[in-house]
Amino acid sequence: MAKTNPGRFFEDYSIGQTIQHAVPRTVGAGERALYHALYPARHAIYSSDAFAQACGLDAAPLDDLAAFHVVFGKTVPDVSLNAVANLGYAEGRWLKPVWPGDTLRSVSEVIGLKQNSNGRTGVVYVRTTGFNEKDEAVLTYVRWVMVRKRDADAPAPEAVVPELAKTVAVEDLVIPEGLTFDGYDYDLAGEPHRWGDYEVGEQIDHVDGVTVEEAEHMMATRLWQNTAKVHFDTSARPDGSRLIYGGHVISMARALSFNGLANAQMIVGLNAGAHANPCLSGDTIRAWTEVLDKAETSVPGVGALRLRLVATKGGAPFELRGEDGKYLPEVLLDLDYWALCPI
Amino acid sequence: MAKTNPGRFFEDYSIGQTIQHAVPRTVGAGERALYHALYPARHAIYSSDAFAQACGLDAAPLDDLAAFHVVFGKTVPDVSLNAVANLGYAEGRWLKPVWPGDTLRSVSEVIGLKQNSNGRTGVVYVRTTGFNEKDEAVLTYVRWVMVRKRDADAPAPEAVVPELAKTVAVEDLVIPEGLTFDGYDYDLAGEPHRWGDYEVGEQIDHVDGVTVEEAEHMMATRLWQNTAKVHFDTSARPDGSRLIYGGHVISMARALSFNGLANAQMIVGLNAGAHANPCLSGDTIRAWTEVLDKAETSVPGVGALRLRLVATKGGAPFELRGEDGKYLPEVLLDLDYWALCPI
Amino acid sequence: MAKTNPGRFFEDYSIGQTIQHAVPRTVGAGERALYHALYPARHAIYSSDAFAQACGLDAAPLDDLAAFHVVFGKTVPDVSLNAVANLGYAEGRWLKPVWPGDTLRSVSEVIGLKQNSNGRTGVVYVRTTGFNEKDEAVLTYVRWVMVRKRDADAPAPEAVVPELAKTVAVEDLVIPEGLTFDGYDYDLAGEPHRWGDYEVGEQIDHVDGVTVEEAEHMMATRLWQNTAKVHFDTSARPDGSRLIYGGHVISMARALSFNGLANAQMIVGLNAGAHANPCLSGDTIRAWTEVLDKAETSVPGVGALRLRLVATKGGAPFELRGEDGKYLPEVLLDLDYWALCPI
Repeated sequence: MAKTNPGRFFEDYSIGQTIQHAVPRTVGAGERALYHALYPARHAIYSSDAFAQACGLDAAPLDDLAAFHVVFGKTVPDVSLNAVANLGYAEGRWLKPVWPGDTLRSVSEVIGLKQNSNGRTGVVYVRTTGFNEKDEAVLTYVRWVMVRKRDADAPAPEAVVPELAKTVAVEDLVIPEGLTFDGYDYDLAGEPHRWGDYEVGEQIDHVDGVTVEEAEHMMATRLWQNTAKVHFDTSARPDGSRLIYGGHVISMARALSFNGLANAQMIVGLNAGAHANPCLSGDTIRAWTEVLDKAETSVPGVGALRLRLVATKGGAPFELRGEDGKYLPEVLLDLDYWALCPI
Repeated sequence: MAKTNPGRFFEDYSIGQTIQHAVPRTVGAGERALYHALYPARHAIYSSDAFAQACGLDAAPLDDLAAFHVVFGKTVPDVSLNAVANLGYAEGRWLKPVWPGDTLRSVSEVIGLKQNSNGRTGVVYVRTTGFNEKDEAVLTYVRWVMVRKRDADAPAPEAVVPELAKTVAVEDLVIPEGLTFDGYDYDLAGEPHRWGDYEVGEQIDHVDGVTVEEAEHMMATRLWQNTAKVHFDTSARPDGSRLIYGGHVISMARALSFNGLANAQMIVGLNAGAHANPCLSGDTIRAWTEVLDKAETSVPGVGALRLRLVATKGGAPFELRGEDGKYLPEVLLDLDYWALCPI
Repeated sequence: MAKTNPGRFFEDYSIGQTIQHAVPRTVGAGERALYHALYPARHAIYSSDAFAQACGLDAAPLDDLAAFHVVFGKTVPDVSLNAVANLGYAEGRWLKPVWPGDTLRSVSEVIGLKQNSNGRTGVVYVRTTGFNEKDEAVLTYVRWVMVRKRDADAPAPEAVVPELAKTVAVEDLVIPEGLTFDGYDYDLAGEPHRWGDYEVGEQIDHVDGVTVEEAEHMMATRLWQNTAKVHFDTSARPDGSRLIYGGHVISMARALSFNGLANAQMIVGLNAGAHANPCLSGDTIRAWTEVLDKAETSVPGVGALRLRLVATKGGAPFELRGEDGKYLPEVLLDLDYWALCPI
């Protein structure tokens, strides 16, 4: 009996299947410090216990994207080891902060399957939920990936394509229990701009850039226990390059967006996301944001901003697609998320 | 009086000498997180407090190899600063888990000395023991190294070569207090293979590979406060390369062995080990395992697997030595250890 | 309204101005571990809770330079984003240890302004103080930087150049509450040399070297939330190189100085400092020390050593300036500090 995990192929998924992903993980002060070493993260609510307490929380939670990466990383051996492409995200919601000492595990349900016309690959849709050690859901999102078939002659399953919300509705955003911006200190947060200062359609160039290195992205990707070979092994791709985990680009771009969005404190919804082009060591990542929408939430003083966050490895800010409608070659990421901001 | 440490030379050792190694170290959540960032470590008992508690422990201990590296690192300034080669390990036993907050220190006793026939070097055997802040021994092992003489004309000491056990006897393995695999969750652990599923002689190719970088191995080696110049200083070796600490290869290979040995949870014995060839930045480390032996332990449900873990930087799996009996040039590590596995 | 921070220009400062720097930061076990991974730090009082407790402290504090970097990092967006050069330090005093769990913030007061004769730049002097979450000052120092003018035609302010002490007087050094070296364990500390063993004028070559890598210095600089573009972005300087944060060189040199100064345990005063030449990835950092002064302190058994710590990227030890009085091109750092040492 072969004991190593070859990953699942398209035929191995069926609608309704539930996958308990392996290797629970306790996170804490070490993951928090590493997150700050790997990304220029400065949002105060994740940096300072005192600031978080002034916002009604018990302490600084783990960065919302670190929580995402831990939950996501667990799914890789079961969902994307044989993936050809990571196609999209939808209906992502952060349900509870992750505190130092929490132990996270992930469960996925297969909610869609569609074989491609070439007969060699298919698209798998999973809804993944992360749980803490009290079995409370902390995060849920849908992801779909293109996966190889083991056997091109295997019959196609009945196509099921889930209907997914274009965006998470504001009323479905979960505001962390106790959160208040009533005593918010804009000096300590780093910028004076409130929710009311942002206009739909406004674009912000985040100005700063970071040239990325092999050692950094591998440390980050391992930290989240993401095992995809292409990130680590120069023999896994024909050109000998290591593909940088898309989540590394997400975190880098979000951290860079502090400069102009310092008060977009907490990510609570993930509407959509595309990894437009591969990122490699030596690329200099920059970011810009477009305000897509804004809304008040159920908590007085807490507003929500819907933001398009674009990461690039060159080119001018605010350019996304070419005349053919395709992403420009220098665009790395197009992410659509909801963040909470003092009104 | 010169104040810097020139390291000890062969003449500076005598049989029975006890060396109190410097710089005790408190380990905790930060070292745990860094271990996960530096190695693709996924054994659940070290990753999750909740999983470790379900196995009867108070919390996830520090990875057994991290404990080894901390204890080992302290010995370098006293034992191997002038070492020409790290020749072997024997009689290694983990005696107590290392918990976050523990402070470790190391003590070595010189148990063997043998001058080489060239008169310029000699072999020093030390038995090193790591202690926690309660002066409880947590780890012990024998290591022997080839050390330069300060003065080739100094007389040779009487040769003393200790008799060392070929393997640690199963009855000498210490099972951590309280450890039980009765409620073991194979889904969360990541693989279904039990102790009974492994056969003596079975070989496992761990499939994955990691291409290593300078920044990573230096961070790891510093984390263990290992001060050997060859790991850090490009002017220390004629070709300008930095030699990667052998322990980095051990940890990388052990982490890679998760894929096929996810349930070989805790290392409790180190029977032997050889760093067959040097590892340099840019090498892609892979690993394979051969099951050398298996035995039940004093604790019902807890089995022991004796495993040969081989790390390579190329070549085919399961090839170890050439026709001349020497290690193949692509073999980095040949390690013989005992791990605990649910029966 | 542009929302990104362009940094302040010379005209934006006025005497007496107080700047509340943004993004408080909680530090802990993660930062401690990362400090050990990034630098070969071995001073026992920062490495071991048990050792620190034997010296009368509650636990091992965060390394004094890590505390400095966190406090310093917060000032960068407000003080040195448009700086041409970091000119000097003075009157630095560590006032309280920083403990794991402390939250640090920084406040600066502008105490000097002097436009340069070229009309395009000016020198800004700030006194920066770091506070913990109890609003206790933990560190204070003066720094002066050369900053660009936004508009060369803007009128020059009245020149104010503060009178700064050449060195911090011994009676102004703050000995951490409870500190005692009465039960000091020289074996565990790593060297036998006491305060009485050092002579004014004595020079120590710290022997070891570390070749630095891009990934390391960027991780360190991000960890301190220092946002200066030149450290991260290869497009920020004409030659595509990333300038290494001067504080990275300070920490590397101080850690290397363990070899010969293992008992110069705690830094309590910063008298002066110059970043003599830029440090780039690939440079091999070495260090040497000259004992400039020594004094007893108010606490029996606790002596102070005034030390010149020089970091180089080549050349011979103990050479600092050329015949023209300028720093030799291989000198990176000339730092003048007070450390506490058992008498």
